[in-house]
Amino acid sequence: MEKAKIEVCYSPALFPYYENRDAVVVVTDILRASSAIVTAFMNGVERIIPVGTLEEAKSYKDRGFMVAAERDGIVRDFADFGNSPYNFTSERVKGKEIVYSTTNGTNAINLASSGSQVLIGAYLNITALAEHIKESGKDLLVLCAGWKNKFNLEDTLFAGALSKMVLDDEHFYTICDAAIGAMDLYEAAETDMMGYIEKVAQRHRLKKNNLDDVIGYCHEFDLTRLIPVLEGKILVPLQDLS
Amino acid sequence: MEKAKIEVCYSPALFPYYENRDAVVVVTDILRASSAIVTAFMNGVERIIPVGTLEEAKSYKDRGFMVAAERDGIVRDFADFGNSPYNFTSERVKGKEIVYSTTNGTNAINLASSGSQVLIGAYLNITALAEHIKESGKDLLVLCAGWKNKFNLEDTLFAGALSKMVLDDEHFYTICDAAIGAMDLYEAAETDMMGYIEKVAQRHRLKKNNLDDVIGYCHEFDLTRLIPVLEGKILVPLQDLS
Repeated sequence: MEKAKIEVCYSPALFPYYENRDAVVVVTDILRASSAIVTAFMNGVERIIPVGTLEEAKSYKDRGFMVAAERDGIVRDFADFGNSPYNFTSERVKGKEIVYSTTNGTNAINLASSGSQVLIGAYLNITALAEHIKESGKDLLVLCAGWKNKFNLEDTLFAGALSKMVLDDEHFYTICDAAIGAMDLYEAAETDMMGYIEKVAQRHRLKKNNLDDVIGYCHEFDLTRLIPVLEGKILVPLQDLS
Repeated sequence: MEKAKIEVCYSPALFPYYENRDAVVVVTDILRASSAIVTAFMNGVERIIPVGTLEEAKSYKDRGFMVAAERDGIVRDFADFGNSPYNFTSERVKGKEIVYSTTNGTNAINLASSGSQVLIGAYLNITALAEHIKESGKDLLVLCAGWKNKFNLEDTLFAGALSKMVLDDEHFYTICDAAIGAMDLYEAAETDMMGYIEKVAQRHRLKKNNLDDVIGYCHEFDLTRLIPVLEGKILVPLQDLS
């Protein structure tokens, strides 16, 4: 059987150069959108509708939907809540459908929709995700949401961690410099992840707004085996692993 | 005095998100365009005209200019020579004006021209470059030429090496994740640079075409204090250090 390749794309703005319609695309925005989405499904949300613009989010709100929306970490006034995983409690989200719009993450999800399958990845579901990708046997493309199209370290470290896990399987290979760089950065960081995360720009942005309480939680491994998957334009839990 | 910031841009396609008209922009394409350009000035070339397209390069050739032009490592048939630093001997280039077009490097140079000063960087002139930037006191933006707008490791490692040298000076700081990532990758690679370079995709592309003889040379430090600078649309040697 032909081997499957692993690639990592560091920014939504670079996606056209990495696009691969045969690949499973894993979108990650560790601080905080992808960690929040995985948490929402852990806590029983039924569907999440990711929307790119605040105008779309507001128009859903006007039609009675529950809406999570933030920009630069700040909850928008029309929204029910923002981007912290701690907002997505089971009391609030169980059995519900939520519209979600964030600075970087939700645009990346919509952009990725050309892939053969689009999954949401976080440390919270990383092992289930790696196992699913290995079982699929398909190419893997990790799309980092980044920060306003710039490279960010926290998404890159996650991309490195996931690439390493999948590369353990001999069916997979990589000749992608960005995947190699991500794995090497993850190896440099993993023995003291919280120390390393002190350096990243997003940690300082969150701290300035007293939103950094979630950083430890967003780096916890394997709290769930649930994997959010994009069906059409809506995120639902992947069924074959539930 | 206000401090000056260091940023690294991993791809020409990301340049709009990093653009900084106050910054000294250092363009690098270690394998091989920026190493070749620095070598040409070491060997007495007077001016280099970087052009983006092969059509422009051909039109200069038709008007009698000496032209270096390659795509994907291969010399174009109308050109006098290609992209190996070994082509730019003093016998060939001394006192001459050369038109130059490459897969990634020359487009990046033209893109960078919005900076307050645009310099060409390679290991061959890294210390002179770092000293000049420190003396300028201005922001530093390193633009990696990458590979067809994808991230590449060899340019990133150079960006990390240069960022570290400049950051030694307390006037400079960075909160740029890409600069931090580049420095951390450089630290992981520097004890065995040639071993590390074995991993990078461009090394394999060059090897396939028997063009990998220059890799060691392109990673030699400080063979010159010459710094190519863009004046208008033409590269000349920076005078204040000559």
